[in-house]
Amino acid sequence: MMKFFTSRIFPFQNSALIFLLVPVIFSGCKSTQKQPGGSSAKHISVQEDFMYQYSIIDALMAGVFDGDLNMSQLKKKGNFGIGTFNKVDGELLMDQGRVYKISYDGSVKEVPDSDSTSAAFVKFFKADTIIHLKGNLTYEAVQEQLAKILNPNGIYALRIAGNFTTMTTRAARPAKPPYTSLPDHLKVNQAVFNLTNTKGICDGFLLPPYLARTNVPGFHLHYLADDRKAGGHIFSFTTSSVTVEVDIAKGFTIENNTNNEFRNVNLKPDRGAELRKIE
Amino acid sequence: MMKFFTSRIFPFQNSALIFLLVPVIFSGCKSTQKQPGGSSAKHISVQEDFMYQYSIIDALMAGVFDGDLNMSQLKKKGNFGIGTFNKVDGELLMDQGRVYKISYDGSVKEVPDSDSTSAAFVKFFKADTIIHLKGNLTYEAVQEQLAKILNPNGIYALRIAGNFTTMTTRAARPAKPPYTSLPDHLKVNQAVFNLTNTKGICDGFLLPPYLARTNVPGFHLHYLADDRKAGGHIFSFTTSSVTVEVDIAKGFTIENNTNNEFRNVNLKPDRGAELRKIE
Repeated sequence: MMKFFTSRIFPFQNSALIFLLVPVIFSGCKSTQKQPGGSSAKHISVQEDFMYQYSIIDALMAGVFDGDLNMSQLKKKGNFGIGTFNKVDGELLMDQGRVYKISYDGSVKEVPDSDSTSAAFVKFFKADTIIHLKGNLTYEAVQEQLAKILNPNGIYALRIAGNFTTMTTRAARPAKPPYTSLPDHLKVNQAVFNLTNTKGICDGFLLPPYLARTNVPGFHLHYLADDRKAGGHIFSFTTSSVTVEVDIAKGFTIENNTNNEFRNVNLKPDRGAELRKIE
Repeated sequence: MMKFFTSRIFPFQNSALIFLLVPVIFSGCKSTQKQPGGSSAKHISVQEDFMYQYSIIDALMAGVFDGDLNMSQLKKKGNFGIGTFNKVDGELLMDQGRVYKISYDGSVKEVPDSDSTSAAFVKFFKADTIIHLKGNLTYEAVQEQLAKILNPNGIYALRIAGNFTTMTTRAARPAKPPYTSLPDHLKVNQAVFNLTNTKGICDGFLLPPYLARTNVPGFHLHYLADDRKAGGHIFSFTTSSVTVEVDIAKGFTIENNTNNEFRNVNLKPDRGAELRKIE
């Protein structure tokens, strides 16, 4: 039996499962402070409410597994996000300015600033809204509820905290050149973790359909257990309660990979159908 | 008979038609100056070598003809580019920081900063390379030559100057609400101009396939005669000589339209086939 509460704050079509929805002043996840005039200490004034990504998903899909952006540079673009590392060596999760790698062996480590990424999606996270969901919830149910509340054409960073009865994730094994496509690599180089009774955060994005080819349309979240002993790219979970911090982005910046593999890869095919199979 | 010259600077597969190709220090089209430390007077340090666009082409295609960004705001994002105005009232061309409207009646006017756009694509233009092409050239031939030289996965701003024997352009008539789709509007609200022996500039972009849905993949250029008496969205031209300034962008920023029409439009369909019909 699901509990549900209606909200008097926003006129939602379907308020089932919505426990509390309030705009908040949330400063805990923001590492940079605005200065008068909209500038900032890090000269990111133009960018600070935009999502940023290095390279594009279709290049990663096609086997461009190495990039030129290291973690020190990535941290200038955001303090929150997801991605992978060079050679697709594990899953990347950035939270509160720290970057973690969830490896193929299941271990979690904070990575040095010298590590590089072939694809990463980040933002300076500042929640605009917090949504509490309760009930017998699956990942799909959480997605459905959020999709009813949020605008289908918007760009959202999501930080979902909770106790998860079950949590199924994956992490990729690092590839060796010459690289295959990502789907071919994952067929035999993906560890799946079935976690139970784990507490942690799901970080990631909800993106609109027009960002197909450049990123993953819909929901894309990675998990990090609070004890830093498990995580990965999320396939599914079950929970009785989650708190969803929602950060609405004003837009989106793509920075191109500059290496020869990116320059030479064929980006004409639409890889959307392949992408849905591995998500 | 085409003249052709080979270049000793870059190893191109096909050097026919390439008269001269040199990396240049080009400062004439740059309105902001870098300060020590990579910052700038306008706090655009992060963005200055990125292309910027307001809204997306698929929203314009679907009939989102009004936006919230005025020319004063647009000029902070670039000094060069193309687009349209609210109500699709004519064609927008920005060059050296000035914004011109080519109207349905064929007239050209510099617009006030209070005018707004529903879709615009701009950059702070700084040529990285200049290419001279000579011969009996059509628009298609120029595109073919540039496509051989430039990387298919790159993002390029192009500024093409020349004397054009013929130049065919269009400008849209402003729409009245309730709006139809852009293809439906243009069917009966598009003026076509057949210019002859005109001298001017073609400003616009060459974009990679992964920016389908958000922008126009391939070439998209608008024309402005040097005498400011003609212009428009380019369909075709013929010329015996053009100078192509090429500005390679490091990436791409999309800022979402924030009005209700954008929030409510259906952006799920891929409108690529419709778009090619009106380009």
